[in-house]
Amino acid sequence: MTRQRAGPEVAFRSLRAAIHEWKNRMHSQLTQLTSVAPLDHSRKAEFQALIDRKTKPVGSLGRLESLALQLALIQQAPIPVLAAPHILVCAGDHGAAKAGVSAYPQDVTWQMVENFLAGGAAINALTRAAGMALVVADAGVAHDFGSRENLVDAKVGAGGTANYLEGAAMTAAQCAQAMANGAAAVEHIAASGCNVLGFGEMGIGNTASASLITHCLSGLPLAEVVGRGTGLDDAGVARKLKLLEQARILYDGPVDDALAVLTRFGGFEIAMLAGAMLAAAQRRMVLLIDGFIVTSALLVAQRLAPAVLDYCVFAHCSEEAGHRRQHEFLGVKPLLDLGLRLGEGTGAALAYPLLVAATAFLKDMASFESAGVSDKA
Amino acid sequence: MTRQRAGPEVAFRSLRAAIHEWKNRMHSQLTQLTSVAPLDHSRKAEFQALIDRKTKPVGSLGRLESLALQLALIQQAPIPVLAAPHILVCAGDHGAAKAGVSAYPQDVTWQMVENFLAGGAAINALTRAAGMALVVADAGVAHDFGSRENLVDAKVGAGGTANYLEGAAMTAAQCAQAMANGAAAVEHIAASGCNVLGFGEMGIGNTASASLITHCLSGLPLAEVVGRGTGLDDAGVARKLKLLEQARILYDGPVDDALAVLTRFGGFEIAMLAGAMLAAAQRRMVLLIDGFIVTSALLVAQRLAPAVLDYCVFAHCSEEAGHRRQHEFLGVKPLLDLGLRLGEGTGAALAYPLLVAATAFLKDMASFESAGVSDKA
Repeated sequence: MTRQRAGPEVAFRSLRAAIHEWKNRMHSQLTQLTSVAPLDHSRKAEFQALIDRKTKPVGSLGRLESLALQLALIQQAPIPVLAAPHILVCAGDHGAAKAGVSAYPQDVTWQMVENFLAGGAAINALTRAAGMALVVADAGVAHDFGSRENLVDAKVGAGGTANYLEGAAMTAAQCAQAMANGAAAVEHIAASGCNVLGFGEMGIGNTASASLITHCLSGLPLAEVVGRGTGLDDAGVARKLKLLEQARILYDGPVDDALAVLTRFGGFEIAMLAGAMLAAAQRRMVLLIDGFIVTSALLVAQRLAPAVLDYCVFAHCSEEAGHRRQHEFLGVKPLLDLGLRLGEGTGAALAYPLLVAATAFLKDMASFESAGVSDKA
Repeated sequence: MTRQRAGPEVAFRSLRAAIHEWKNRMHSQLTQLTSVAPLDHSRKAEFQALIDRKTKPVGSLGRLESLALQLALIQQAPIPVLAAPHILVCAGDHGAAKAGVSAYPQDVTWQMVENFLAGGAAINALTRAAGMALVVADAGVAHDFGSRENLVDAKVGAGGTANYLEGAAMTAAQCAQAMANGAAAVEHIAASGCNVLGFGEMGIGNTASASLITHCLSGLPLAEVVGRGTGLDDAGVARKLKLLEQARILYDGPVDDALAVLTRFGGFEIAMLAGAMLAAAQRRMVLLIDGFIVTSALLVAQRLAPAVLDYCVFAHCSEEAGHRRQHEFLGVKPLLDLGLRLGEGTGAALAYPLLVAATAFLKDMASFESAGVSDKA
């Protein structure tokens, strides 16, 4: 009998050790990822005074002035410099997509990734127009792309996430892996000298995932954060809401534990984005946040490291129901409101020229003294 | 006695003839300036179909799509091309400025023109950042700039306008001259191949002038269109409103005659801008309209040639009270709302990248067919 039980007992002990080791590793990884320093405000008055002495009535450049101050604080420099701007688009598939939460078939995820790689999507056109570089990552698309030069292979789970209508979308290990992949992608991008990073996503069904995450982490009613996604009609939205209510009821874990919520409902692309945001804030990059799904990833990141918000510039308020509510919850106001509801980071690409303008006025404008212009009487 | 009366009689007759000839010339000039063709909508369905087949849910690029359609209609081309973008800043002084309608001394007008010429103003920084060229015109500043290479000499009235608290700000001939100068400036700019033109202004006291013009041409109550300008406090705004009410009471001309109103209350820069807008629309340029004063010039232009609106893209809604009311009156919504209240055309420079983005998605995005992406189920 001793012999008979020896095998399992040994295996059990090493499994426990492995789990312990894994937990330690995860914990240490998470501790490292979430150590984001809040902005240092000690030079704020100095930076503000430089803005105020420019040849214009005080405050007359409106939000361009607060943006300029934020950029100066992030870089701790009176004249911040934007370098090698990138947009990171993470793509992933969702087990729940086939349940009918989207107007489009799941194949559109990989087809659109191919479109990104071929340069024909909206985000390709808009990053080019804005002078930004685009990085596309496969965070877990249900498709074999093979080895592709311009695709970051960050695949977790070859078939996309599991269906949260039946259980957890991913395992804790998968979640940690996706977040680590996001951090690794940022490290790679940072090597180019990049200090301003926008975020985008692609994944049929991912507004549904974002709705569940937003509902859990913000406490907003599910009905207020469920929307049309890529274009559901009223009946489609009603069906989507009903499915998501079922998914919510099935989940008996904690709703204020960002990682538990992310693991249960997340897309791999959302987990990857959350990890990328933490890593980017850690590196004192400017984070350009755009869209409902990306903002749901930020809710995760912000729960894990509240200071990440200090580094965020909110690009655009989309038409997707719930995005405005996310902004209200975070107490922020995006720069643009142009009725987009496409995702991909398109709003971030549209907002980037405003960051350029904010640094340009800091750099190029004369002061009242230097220009010999009379100040207010 | 015959002899005694012969002189004056002859002089009178030739004066009448001269006035007649001048009136004819003015009339013919005005007829020419105000002949603006409305947009041809015959290819609208074709242009819209191209937008709808791009790889994105229909309408998901929001206002970028309506902007793209407008640009296509203006240029009558499925893929419009923006060429040699300019901003024309017209500067002028106001006789009423010294009565206390502004927070800044009148000298700031010429000092800021010098700042424009030296490249140190906000509009210099923002046009550079946006890749636009800047043209600065002296429409009637109370200052002798001498001959300056990069300043368009369009001066009407060496000392600025007369004080509308005492009479008409300008003569009809001066008004016509300023408008003709605007048209001439556009002709000059068009020679560079420019097909997109933003408008800006500088002139201490010119929000007051714009308030009176807006009040007369829109019928909005004066109190709703009088604001802080460059930074008046509450007492300053109350004093400004009281002065403008006096000015309004003194005027017994028609309030719906755009030229009469412009002549009575206008700045030379406002008249020059109105003429420039008419000429630009005539040339089928895209007009980038920004700011309260520039929009008051557009109210004049639009009254003279309603079709001018077809060519206008509204850049930014400023903090100046009355600007939002102007937009409501015209039934338009600007692209940006960033709290600027500086003028100079700064909002136009900030909005220009959105026009670039609108043409970029038309040019660079694949269609569902060409990219092999599945359409909505």
